[in-house]
Amino acid sequence: MQTDLNKLIEQYRSELYDNVLPFWLENSIDNEFGGYFTCLDREGKVFDTDKFIWLQGREVWLLSMLYNNVEKRQEWLDAAVKGGEFLKKYGHDGDFNWYFSTTREGKPLVEPYNIFSYTFATMAFGQLAKATGNKEYEEIARKTWDRILSKTDNPKGKWNKLHPGTRPLKNFALPMILCNLVLEIQHLLDDSMLKTTTDAFLKEVMGDFMRPELGGLVVENVMQDGTLCDCFEGRHMNPGHAIEAMWFIMDLGKKLGRPELIEKAKDTALLMAEYGWDKEFGGIFYFMDLKGCPPQELEWDQKLWWVHIETLISMIKGYALTGDERCLRWFERIHDYTWEHFKDHEYREWFGYLNRRGEVLMPLKGGKWKGCFHVPRGLYQVWQTLEYIRSERPDLAAKMPEILKTV
Amino acid sequence: MQTDLNKLIEQYRSELYDNVLPFWLENSIDNEFGGYFTCLDREGKVFDTDKFIWLQGREVWLLSMLYNNVEKRQEWLDAAVKGGEFLKKYGHDGDFNWYFSTTREGKPLVEPYNIFSYTFATMAFGQLAKATGNKEYEEIARKTWDRILSKTDNPKGKWNKLHPGTRPLKNFALPMILCNLVLEIQHLLDDSMLKTTTDAFLKEVMGDFMRPELGGLVVENVMQDGTLCDCFEGRHMNPGHAIEAMWFIMDLGKKLGRPELIEKAKDTALLMAEYGWDKEFGGIFYFMDLKGCPPQELEWDQKLWWVHIETLISMIKGYALTGDERCLRWFERIHDYTWEHFKDHEYREWFGYLNRRGEVLMPLKGGKWKGCFHVPRGLYQVWQTLEYIRSERPDLAAKMPEILKTV
Repeated sequence: MQTDLNKLIEQYRSELYDNVLPFWLENSIDNEFGGYFTCLDREGKVFDTDKFIWLQGREVWLLSMLYNNVEKRQEWLDAAVKGGEFLKKYGHDGDFNWYFSTTREGKPLVEPYNIFSYTFATMAFGQLAKATGNKEYEEIARKTWDRILSKTDNPKGKWNKLHPGTRPLKNFALPMILCNLVLEIQHLLDDSMLKTTTDAFLKEVMGDFMRPELGGLVVENVMQDGTLCDCFEGRHMNPGHAIEAMWFIMDLGKKLGRPELIEKAKDTALLMAEYGWDKEFGGIFYFMDLKGCPPQELEWDQKLWWVHIETLISMIKGYALTGDERCLRWFERIHDYTWEHFKDHEYREWFGYLNRRGEVLMPLKGGKWKGCFHVPRGLYQVWQTLEYIRSERPDLAAKMPEILKTV
Repeated sequence: MQTDLNKLIEQYRSELYDNVLPFWLENSIDNEFGGYFTCLDREGKVFDTDKFIWLQGREVWLLSMLYNNVEKRQEWLDAAVKGGEFLKKYGHDGDFNWYFSTTREGKPLVEPYNIFSYTFATMAFGQLAKATGNKEYEEIARKTWDRILSKTDNPKGKWNKLHPGTRPLKNFALPMILCNLVLEIQHLLDDSMLKTTTDAFLKEVMGDFMRPELGGLVVENVMQDGTLCDCFEGRHMNPGHAIEAMWFIMDLGKKLGRPELIEKAKDTALLMAEYGWDKEFGGIFYFMDLKGCPPQELEWDQKLWWVHIETLISMIKGYALTGDERCLRWFERIHDYTWEHFKDHEYREWFGYLNRRGEVLMPLKGGKWKGCFHVPRGLYQVWQTLEYIRSERPDLAAKMPEILKTV
């Protein structure tokens, strides 16, 4: 890794500006039907035209967020509106129940069974409303937020295949995403709603899923009563997920002025990175089993782009906000792995799926789950956090070369 | 591969009798609550106690089938009844809607969304009724069969997440399994039911999913109107699935006295084996994409036990029933791969999941999807087919060493 901070900042900024954003702006926009293509091969050619609402929402969010936070580029706003209009017309059933996917033209393909279609739509319209001042977009974000809150008890609704009562589990993913979402749409929430929901989500994430009896490890599922469950779901570990959640918590800790929350989140990110690191081939495993039993997921040992990019964010934020040297060392380790294995040095954008050895498993740049989101968000977040270190924490900036030399 | 036919027969027979069956009889039976443990580690120790109805039904079937067809061993029948009684009491909702899984004690965990829980229950009770003469078991098989027929239009019922009408696809798996199931329960069906259903399933399998415009390749999903669909599901290829179906069709062809059906099935099995073979590392891929696009499934390049065992069956049946030398050569190729990579030479039973290179990905011997089924069924089928060659087709037996020498 580059140890000159100015050059490192420039590396992340230019990768975002000159490589990743042009890839999506040139290849993903559907000028005929609106919305975005996300199934893009190594070079950026469309290989499938179905539209997945997670990724439609995430691209609207990313482009509007950059417009709001970085630069008022008309090209970004126009592209964001193109996705927003598609989502507004075709993404939901008329009553803000968000489909999982539609055809290229916008006909519903998969029913609104997945709560994260709702959360990413809320993020999208929250940022797009801010970028445009459009009241209709604001209303969509607000109404979808209400829908989400009304569904937290049974997010899958009638598509839930679990028999009621036998083994009531709750899952980490929803409260985790909501910890991020409250910050994304704070401009749309009144203070009391913001406080109540934030407290509730934080309590779940830091209370139920972070387990003192496991030395602080974060599990993906616990029983409704808060106990651990020795079943496949109860043993399921997703280190990247937990590490990602920790930078949401650090952001919340910063906003709420709660340094102890930041400290805890930073320690947990470090713990989960250590836990998930593949000592044989490098990289962080996708899934693990708490007791070392064979996991259900055959892809458990693969190395996924988002896991590593989210770890970069958590580690650099951990360093910037607490000065913990271990965070900077982990940042370097993951930086080296990520830029070596995920970045495509021949074509633009990054690979998403590597096998355990770090070899490319699928050469796609976008698909059903990988879109214009984790790579550009990660580049933006790391770039901005490095900028923060340079401008706000010259003491930490000064220590960087020395810490990295001792690795 | 052993080219002495007598020794080859003994290899398959003794692997079944001395290795695989004892593994399941000693480790899988739950003497406390009935039914079977299927989550067994490399040595046979239980690592999870949930009961998956697919695998409960399949183990009942396997043990009863061996009792009916091979030897009247009381131990096999007792173990089969233990699973049958568990299924009878806890496997369904009282109205022959079969859950996907239950707890160890039999409390329903996952709702009856999966039609294959029904098909394997029917197989189980069909054979168990034959083994015991118990009319109640017969009735369960008959009633579940009726349920299946009433659900063929929308097997997932209310758990179906596809929006009605937009892209009406039909899937290969159900008619394929039904081609096998009609033979399994023919003793319970009257002639007209047998004829009508067999004709219908055969027409679907050999008509809709086998595509002349693709040189005869078998696809997993087509539109209801029989056309191909250029979407993830429409491009989805599962070579092992298609190859497995082909020995069901050969069995049907033999029963119906239709040699042209056998010929077509044998040619298709050869075609799909050629199509699915990994020329770099050996073994047959789990999933492929018809157009070579990145598949949805991250596990696409893995090598699974059942794919290879089903290919062994289809190839040896193809040779036995048609004399096609290519089948015998493929049998040898898959035999060598399978015995080298899937058989555990230290502990009993076979591995299930290998990575692309053929290295063990997960050391389990049983899990959520692997139970007492494909390995013992495959050993039984190959053993019996080799016996058939020895006793009924001495001409083919005599040609074997010569054909194999030229490989």
